[in-house]
Amino acid sequence: MRISEEHLVRALGDWQRPGVPLVGSLDGALREAVLDGRLRVGGALPAERRIAAGLGISRGTVVAALARLRDAGWVHTRHGSASTVRLPPQEAEPIAPLSASGHAGSIDLRKAVPAAPRAGYLDAVARAVALAGPALAQDGYPGAGLPDLRAAVADRYTRQGLATRPEQILVTSGARAALALLAAHLRPRVAAVENPTYPRAIAVLREAGARLAGIRVETAGWDPEQLVAAFAAARGGLAYLVPDFQNPTGALMDARTRQAVAVAAAEHRVTVVADETMRDLHLAPEPSWPRRIRRAVLIGSAGKSVWGGLRVGWIRSPETALIDALRLHPLYEPLSAPPLEQLVAVELLADLEPLLQRRRTELRVQRDHLAGLLAAANGPRGAHGPRAGSRAAGPESDGGLWRFTAPDGGLVLWLRLTGTRADVAVARARAAGIELAPGPRYAVDGTLAHYLRVPFTPPPAALDRIAATLATACRP
Amino acid sequence: MRISEEHLVRALGDWQRPGVPLVGSLDGALREAVLDGRLRVGGALPAERRIAAGLGISRGTVVAALARLRDAGWVHTRHGSASTVRLPPQEAEPIAPLSASGHAGSIDLRKAVPAAPRAGYLDAVARAVALAGPALAQDGYPGAGLPDLRAAVADRYTRQGLATRPEQILVTSGARAALALLAAHLRPRVAAVENPTYPRAIAVLREAGARLAGIRVETAGWDPEQLVAAFAAARGGLAYLVPDFQNPTGALMDARTRQAVAVAAAEHRVTVVADETMRDLHLAPEPSWPRRIRRAVLIGSAGKSVWGGLRVGWIRSPETALIDALRLHPLYEPLSAPPLEQLVAVELLADLEPLLQRRRTELRVQRDHLAGLLAAANGPRGAHGPRAGSRAAGPESDGGLWRFTAPDGGLVLWLRLTGTRADVAVARARAAGIELAPGPRYAVDGTLAHYLRVPFTPPPAALDRIAATLATACRP
Repeated sequence: MRISEEHLVRALGDWQRPGVPLVGSLDGALREAVLDGRLRVGGALPAERRIAAGLGISRGTVVAALARLRDAGWVHTRHGSASTVRLPPQEAEPIAPLSASGHAGSIDLRKAVPAAPRAGYLDAVARAVALAGPALAQDGYPGAGLPDLRAAVADRYTRQGLATRPEQILVTSGARAALALLAAHLRPRVAAVENPTYPRAIAVLREAGARLAGIRVETAGWDPEQLVAAFAAARGGLAYLVPDFQNPTGALMDARTRQAVAVAAAEHRVTVVADETMRDLHLAPEPSWPRRIRRAVLIGSAGKSVWGGLRVGWIRSPETALIDALRLHPLYEPLSAPPLEQLVAVELLADLEPLLQRRRTELRVQRDHLAGLLAAANGPRGAHGPRAGSRAAGPESDGGLWRFTAPDGGLVLWLRLTGTRADVAVARARAAGIELAPGPRYAVDGTLAHYLRVPFTPPPAALDRIAATLATACRP
Repeated sequence: MRISEEHLVRALGDWQRPGVPLVGSLDGALREAVLDGRLRVGGALPAERRIAAGLGISRGTVVAALARLRDAGWVHTRHGSASTVRLPPQEAEPIAPLSASGHAGSIDLRKAVPAAPRAGYLDAVARAVALAGPALAQDGYPGAGLPDLRAAVADRYTRQGLATRPEQILVTSGARAALALLAAHLRPRVAAVENPTYPRAIAVLREAGARLAGIRVETAGWDPEQLVAAFAAARGGLAYLVPDFQNPTGALMDARTRQAVAVAAAEHRVTVVADETMRDLHLAPEPSWPRRIRRAVLIGSAGKSVWGGLRVGWIRSPETALIDALRLHPLYEPLSAPPLEQLVAVELLADLEPLLQRRRTELRVQRDHLAGLLAAANGPRGAHGPRAGSRAAGPESDGGLWRFTAPDGGLVLWLRLTGTRADVAVARARAAGIELAPGPRYAVDGTLAHYLRVPFTPPPAALDRIAATLATACRP
């Protein structure tokens, strides 16, 4: 499609940057317009002289800016044809979504989620579309999920050592949809949850009418007494747990705690819902896994490891009777996944490991980069160099601005601020263009005023800016 | 991809049909395996001699069956290459989903929904994928909806005479998701609904904790006294109405009733939720529309007019404050639409009219065909020929097996059986391989035992079989 002269002028808006030469201003403004979606990738630009006329600058300036953009891969020109807009590969594959990348000036770290792995994702979509014929001839509601997807998900569990049949899998539009469906079906009077935990899970459980009983978690692990008390309070109801790289603490539940959960669940007839969305994001070089919690209902998705925009998640139940009941629930179809997204998920699952390997490598670098900067900001006393990746590696940083232990997986660092409250730090960071979520958002009881969650999803350059801003924002 | 010999044998299963020659059996079995998705379109078949060996038949039989399949467009062979599986165009575009087409032997009419318009849908997907770059660089949760989609939906209302801004639109994963979200947010103690109405709407409202107050609707219209009484009972709550080709009666709400609804809603502070999913399926040659109900919250989707597998719907609210509140509801993100589906919806909406025109033409033919058959089955007394399409055209059929008035829109006929109960008729039809939903499924109070909903989505050949089966099943 052609980009009209008027559309280009509108998309570039107020493009001239004070103190920046025209060529550089135009180069930068066009990149941002593409990244923001104001200029469509694949669109054909007007001729150089028309761009010049539209922007009221010389043709030479336009030629020079386009040459720069061409060199950097933002514009492609075939001999004798119009120049078309491109997204350069290096811009197309960062883990951070644009909102968290710093490209737009501000950095939004309130969600710790990745952007899509562009090339691999588009390949999977293309393969899915080629196979979509039979799905398009159906009514669009593939029951508990497309057979190929249920089989692929079941197969993945089986390969991980948890024998699973497709009938044990229910496909949903994501892990949160899975939790919402389970909560609507089980209608727990009280739900046991970690404290802190994923705020949207708190909201979903409260919306379903549940009172929450918290179990204190720190990076080092779960509080065993609160665990037993919360399961007793949730008797006959539900427990929502994130055993693998718990959000936001990054804690990995050890075998003994998993066993204690299974015992407490059996004693108090509590359905354990284990959210495994972070499980694929283990960052240790040779991860070793404690066994899964016995008889837990598992929920998963590719939302954190691949992309939240793929709205496909699932429930794995030890009993097929639960799957059958959920499938008949009035909310199931609205919370189920579209056939095309399911086909994309089948294609992604068929070749997920290489993609995950790349992401893990990048996340490891980013985690260590951020952890190194934050440790260094604490001053020589609490120096905490980039860690090797083993779980027991570093001692907690000591003194200075914060304490933390870099986790062995997940997407975030969980800082305990030693000099200021998190809400104060968040307000200061906001003034510097960085949005963060303070600890109380993750608390079930309004506590955790001195905690701050900091995702390491952004690229190193953005992490530099984030660490510098935090060092100022978290001063006493 | 190659289809292995073992996979082919498994996909064909018990393929020999008693009394049918081997060539015809193999031809038919392979078509069904493709239509059911057991054999992938685009897959390469094994060599003829290997097929023959695998199935234990002569190579000549395989060659003859493949020649038939090739002639009918089910198999494509390039000189010197393997034969690949195809879906012939004429099979790819029926309105009926496969489950309702009669291809598989049985006909499932419990859902009145269309299959996707294959070619147009795949075109829209291809255009959407080409534009997906910026969306993939985001976090996958486009707030209240992609700006382009909110603008396209708003623009469509504006062109219909209802001035609408994008801020008044909230994108959901379908009309039912929209209702579930509204019910969860408004939490009505009592909801006023039509009786009969869409059973899944009944389930969603009950799930949200609402007691239901019914308003009797027949093909001729809404009961004005029950309307007022139901709104009084629902005071401060919600009314769920389908003013345009009400499901299942097909009734179109007249201007006077719409006015009465607006007055009762204002008096009793009831939020009217008008489900407009059937609105695009008007089948009159020159449809004239009563104005929309004043201050109603409108919900829509392309699920009935295009395809239910496109999980995109929306809410239009007169007040942006409601949109803002819904957007923050814990269930909103799980009930929102994936970015790729939203991009597909933008592309479909940009060129919807030609697609709708073709569907309406086909549905008109099918409605008249079924109505003609059912009128004829009533015998000469109640003869009721194919109707011209005007709303007041035919009198109700009289005597015989059933009475009905063919509606001016929608997807179904609503029969009042004069000789037998619907549950009896449904059981008899099931024995003949046709699944139908009896009236009480649509009732809020267990009544309507003599009503039967019959979709006219299937192609004429299947309608012939349906009418013949009903003529037997509905005998006293």
